[in-house]
Amino acid sequence: MEVVIIGGDAAGMSAGSRIKRHRPDFNITVFERTHDVSYSACGMPYNLADPGREMDDLVVRQAQVFREKQNIDLKIGHRVEKIDAAGRTVSGTSESGEAFYKNYDKLLIATGASPVIPDLAGCALPGVCALKSLEDGRAIKTFIKERPVNKAVIIGMGYIALEMAEALRAREIELEMVKPRPTFLPWLAPDLAWEVKNEVIKNGVGIHTGTPIHKIEPDKARLKVVCEDETLEADMVLVAVGIKPNSQIAADAGIVLGPGGAVTVDQSLQTSIPGIYAAGDCADAYHVVTGERVWIPLALRANRAGWAAADNICGNRIELAGVAGTAVFKVFDFEVARTGITTTEAESAGFDPVDVSIKSSSRAHAHPGSGLIWVHMIGDKKSGRLLGAQMVGREGVAHRINAAAVALHAGMTVEAFSQSDLAYAPPFGPTWDPLLTASNQLKKRM
Amino acid sequence: MEVVIIGGDAAGMSAGSRIKRHRPDFNITVFERTHDVSYSACGMPYNLADPGREMDDLVVRQAQVFREKQNIDLKIGHRVEKIDAAGRTVSGTSESGEAFYKNYDKLLIATGASPVIPDLAGCALPGVCALKSLEDGRAIKTFIKERPVNKAVIIGMGYIALEMAEALRAREIELEMVKPRPTFLPWLAPDLAWEVKNEVIKNGVGIHTGTPIHKIEPDKARLKVVCEDETLEADMVLVAVGIKPNSQIAADAGIVLGPGGAVTVDQSLQTSIPGIYAAGDCADAYHVVTGERVWIPLALRANRAGWAAADNICGNRIELAGVAGTAVFKVFDFEVARTGITTTEAESAGFDPVDVSIKSSSRAHAHPGSGLIWVHMIGDKKSGRLLGAQMVGREGVAHRINAAAVALHAGMTVEAFSQSDLAYAPPFGPTWDPLLTASNQLKKRM
Repeated sequence: MEVVIIGGDAAGMSAGSRIKRHRPDFNITVFERTHDVSYSACGMPYNLADPGREMDDLVVRQAQVFREKQNIDLKIGHRVEKIDAAGRTVSGTSESGEAFYKNYDKLLIATGASPVIPDLAGCALPGVCALKSLEDGRAIKTFIKERPVNKAVIIGMGYIALEMAEALRAREIELEMVKPRPTFLPWLAPDLAWEVKNEVIKNGVGIHTGTPIHKIEPDKARLKVVCEDETLEADMVLVAVGIKPNSQIAADAGIVLGPGGAVTVDQSLQTSIPGIYAAGDCADAYHVVTGERVWIPLALRANRAGWAAADNICGNRIELAGVAGTAVFKVFDFEVARTGITTTEAESAGFDPVDVSIKSSSRAHAHPGSGLIWVHMIGDKKSGRLLGAQMVGREGVAHRINAAAVALHAGMTVEAFSQSDLAYAPPFGPTWDPLLTASNQLKKRM
Repeated sequence: MEVVIIGGDAAGMSAGSRIKRHRPDFNITVFERTHDVSYSACGMPYNLADPGREMDDLVVRQAQVFREKQNIDLKIGHRVEKIDAAGRTVSGTSESGEAFYKNYDKLLIATGASPVIPDLAGCALPGVCALKSLEDGRAIKTFIKERPVNKAVIIGMGYIALEMAEALRAREIELEMVKPRPTFLPWLAPDLAWEVKNEVIKNGVGIHTGTPIHKIEPDKARLKVVCEDETLEADMVLVAVGIKPNSQIAADAGIVLGPGGAVTVDQSLQTSIPGIYAAGDCADAYHVVTGERVWIPLALRANRAGWAAADNICGNRIELAGVAGTAVFKVFDFEVARTGITTTEAESAGFDPVDVSIKSSSRAHAHPGSGLIWVHMIGDKKSGRLLGAQMVGREGVAHRINAAAVALHAGMTVEAFSQSDLAYAPPFGPTWDPLLTASNQLKKRM
């Protein structure tokens, strides 16, 4: 059996490794356009924050390990340009300019995602960076090392932008963040978003929401970000306005795309063309709350989908449950987490949502070191179901959100969730966990 | 409506307050034998650790607040000695020696639990203490303040004993812990228990398991704990071998007792005698995994049962779900958590259990500051259900356990739980949460 995998990051390599474990007799060829496979992309902001660490610390496994230990034919510097679904062939060009092609019996598209580069003059200037691949990370780290970077501007305020804000401030770089749209973290309840924004500002970051950006210009050795009402000077500009799935190659082959332009897959990770699978940041998923297709590109799903695609390619039919959209990030001393859907998303999906925000504490009454925890929780009046939860605070947020995530997978009502027997000890929370307090309050409105 | 509540701690006062909120027209009389109501008992070890704090910092609300703001007739220093169920009357004696009696329409027994004092000569000597009430806490704190306490012995190694070990070591008191039975934390999987024991020993505590204790003797101004093969000297001895429900008064009234001698209640918190309710550490509960009655006296359940009893007393029929036995404690730099049942308990309950232990990390690959997390997970081969989970580690344990607890409430299979979309970011865990890694491994054995 000839298996071809396009893309050698989380989904691609986890799939390749798993297929080889189950079926050493299958031939696996992986085409990766960069030189990096199997690295911790999410670790890049933390690595950038520390001048003492090499970006290559994030590499989990080197290419030769896959080749020698797992007998995977891993071809780096190979860009696949075309899938011929009728002929079951992929073709492309290697770095050295040589054309290549390869027949397959089963194909896995694991092409990942790329940063969105806005249609803005000056985005290609030296010192204007984006962060997605390890190569991007190395370039930014080298730039900071070799230039005097005293001031930076980040365009965008999503979670990668915010993680990078923390990293750049750790390097004592002055920082402004700018975005055209008016709302800071629009997917977060406004009262919770306000707390996060406040934390970012307290850490010396200038926040410019609702600020249309006209262009980036060179300014001697520096850069100028020219906005509607102001011009921000910088030694470096980071563009972090979002990512888009690398799905063009799939679309060109006639494969159906779905939300966000991601490759549409069924629960066995198969695309609209039998024998062609997709997994990772390029593919979509079902949402466990709405049952609808969504594109929520996150690392756990990429790994899980890689494994499930592998199992299906090996002939063990595996169906993946959906995603709950659980995510967490750290920004300065704040943990920000979410799971499920927002009130707005719930309205669009036909629910009759009601929500509540509460403020609780991270440790017991009178326990030293306690901080505030804000919880926003959304339920459906019609069915009583829990639809989503959001939390922010200095501690105790990142793992707490998982309790709500599991409740979403189980389709629990707010009432049932509110009866959960959650852990209590004074160093870790109040007797009534903040999630229980929120669900008790939400019940009253339902 | 005359409502009488016996006991003014978590369950009793939360019930009294809630009844008054719903039905200000109800007369509420609370009889509390001590002078303390509404305090954070679980906070006592942490308070003891800090000589700068007063034990009374743990009082959440003073008696007069309940009297004046909530119009609850709260009688402290009043010990109820008898319930006359036929005559719907309670009677007892106040501190001043006066007999009292009171008629009721509805009665709530919230008498809590008391420390078990072993049948051991010398347990009444000065310097031999137990810890349950705030009065106990004050006595221990005063003892440490007024005497030179350089060395202590703790009899018992349960979670209160271990929390107290941390507190006494924080006061730079030399410490030995002793128990007759051979196993350290028998409810924890042996490999996890070994890690906790090691942490305790590393913090300078002598651990003497499997050591029968013969007596406690005075030794000039000090004490001697005479054991089978050794004698441990101490300035103070803490007896922490467990607690027992204060249920004698209920038994005397003909109320049925259940596991551990706790008052048997149905899901509406009613005892075997209509109109008499019980809540808190004196009462039992259903276990969500086994469906059987259990006595697991913990603070959240006490508060929740107090509220539910209040609702039922007010005529709003509320049924409480069971408990999952979720618990967490901190000992030195370790977090120790559990939910559900152990393999041994699963066997007794008629399951066909299979378990797994895994070691993971508290942060992502290459993220600085990562520590180990050990997870033990138990599933049922026959039904595929998740039955329990245990975790230990230096960080990321206390709140993670809640995800498994919710899964137990939902009756999830290990397979379904393993598909949960849990949060990931490098500062907070590996891409595959330790609970997911454990469930992936457990699936293979099922």
